[in-house]
Amino acid sequence: MSQRRLSPLTVSECFALLNDDEVGRLIFVDDVGPAALPVNYAVDGESIVFRIEHSSKQFALRAGLAFEVDRINRSLHSGWSVLVRGTAQELTMDEAAALVHRVKSAFPRPWAEGVHNVWMKLTPTEVTGRRLEVPANDG
Amino acid sequence: MSQRRLSPLTVSECFALLNDDEVGRLIFVDDVGPAALPVNYAVDGESIVFRIEHSSKQFALRAGLAFEVDRINRSLHSGWSVLVRGTAQELTMDEAAALVHRVKSAFPRPWAEGVHNVWMKLTPTEVTGRRLEVPANDG
Repeated sequence: MSQRRLSPLTVSECFALLNDDEVGRLIFVDDVGPAALPVNYAVDGESIVFRIEHSSKQFALRAGLAFEVDRINRSLHSGWSVLVRGTAQELTMDEAAALVHRVKSAFPRPWAEGVHNVWMKLTPTEVTGRRLEVPANDG
Repeated sequence: MSQRRLSPLTVSECFALLNDDEVGRLIFVDDVGPAALPVNYAVDGESIVFRIEHSSKQFALRAGLAFEVDRINRSLHSGWSVLVRGTAQELTMDEAAALVHRVKSAFPRPWAEGVHNVWMKLTPTEVTGRRLEVPANDG
């Protein structure tokens, strides 16, 4: 297979892809170094909303957090990825309740069991993405 | 759908999953903060080998690097993820040539165009993983 061209996505293309998915990876730095964990999320306006366990809160609240969503097509060697960078804050219970009311369909309900009782909002300072495009002349 | 139990994976289960895939996410810290980018990779013994562009080298060589691989089943709300943490070093041309000779089938050929002429090896200090299991009584 020939190699694919890597094309940047516009911010609105990134948000269209973010709106269309529900699992991404929280990229954070803990006491060991950088790390990533899959989490369920929802998009609320231009923010990424997710729920985590209390034990992860201290790392998610550090200055500098990122969120990555991608789809990889292993047979076509194509795909896209979106990286949202910014800083997170904890939502109050009132803010979380208002969010659930506002975007019921996008309610980020964790698939995993456990007490994910901390609601976080990542406000982006930078949203970038790229797509690996299959050339027109490639099978 | 009921919620899934999150079970830890053993290190050998993690390596079996790593060996069975070819795209993961490099988790690094650049001058803005933590970030993630999909890359092609190969497993060489207990190391993760990947190729990057020269411009990314300075960030990949920083102390503390991680590599994440996962598979998410959105319809079943199940999946697994593996996180490899450690420090990377650049391979010499001789080391890269020996690697290509040794693990030809696992040669990490980037899908994307561009000059990915820096060969890196991530030596793990920690390999963890978890699986979201569908309960037996769930459809």
